[in-house]
Amino acid sequence: MTSKIEKGPPSTSECKATLNAIADALYVIGGKWKLRIIVALKEGNKRFNELHRVIGGISAKVLSTELKDLELNGFINRKVFTGTPVVVEYELSPYAETLNEVLHSLSEWGARHREKVRKSMKKQKALA
Amino acid sequence: MTSKIEKGPPSTSECKATLNAIADALYVIGGKWKLRIIVALKEGNKRFNELHRVIGGISAKVLSTELKDLELNGFINRKVFTGTPVVVEYELSPYAETLNEVLHSLSEWGARHREKVRKSMKKQKALA
Repeated sequence: MTSKIEKGPPSTSECKATLNAIADALYVIGGKWKLRIIVALKEGNKRFNELHRVIGGISAKVLSTELKDLELNGFINRKVFTGTPVVVEYELSPYAETLNEVLHSLSEWGARHREKVRKSMKKQKALA
Repeated sequence: MTSKIEKGPPSTSECKATLNAIADALYVIGGKWKLRIIVALKEGNKRFNELHRVIGGISAKVLSTELKDLELNGFINRKVFTGTPVVVEYELSPYAETLNEVLHSLSEWGARHREKVRKSMKKQKALA
């Protein structure tokens, strides 16, 4: 049903089905940070502070909440290594791999439209 | 660079480039509603109240802000038909078409993982 997006205008029911599917997807991976956390973990497992450093602009509080959500929704695992000190690492689950196509299309779009997006950012900042 | 997502773990610089591209994309189309508004307009031009009805759960105030952002960023045009009463319609711009692949991959993912997502929704509501 969603392949119709690429062709003519979709019918009302197709539109509704696509809307629902996108709403479902955005429910678990929407927002400013979740996909960025997942991409950062693709490079390898990371501790909280490493993640905080790699993903610029996120507060520790928000990062903590986002990690909990991602864990609850099965995208990441929290690995605890007992010892002194206790080390906690975050790793992607196999389920997170299912997002590859979404991540790929988003990053392709972002790279291709970079100039326009940067201009938009400036405009929005000037208006704020 | 982003095609590496599908293969082994990306290097730090690849990861950084992908992170930036995704951050750029999410800057203009991130959040809960923007992509849903775009999908709703794929079916055809709509007036404010029609959009409000089709996209369940959005408040009029938020819809209004989102429409302004989408217009500022070039994804939609606001068409004003003078007359009595004045009619205002929103339509997608050709630029919005560039999001087809992103929308396609998101809705495919949402449709494929519907069961798991619905379970997550229940879990999160139970915790809230």
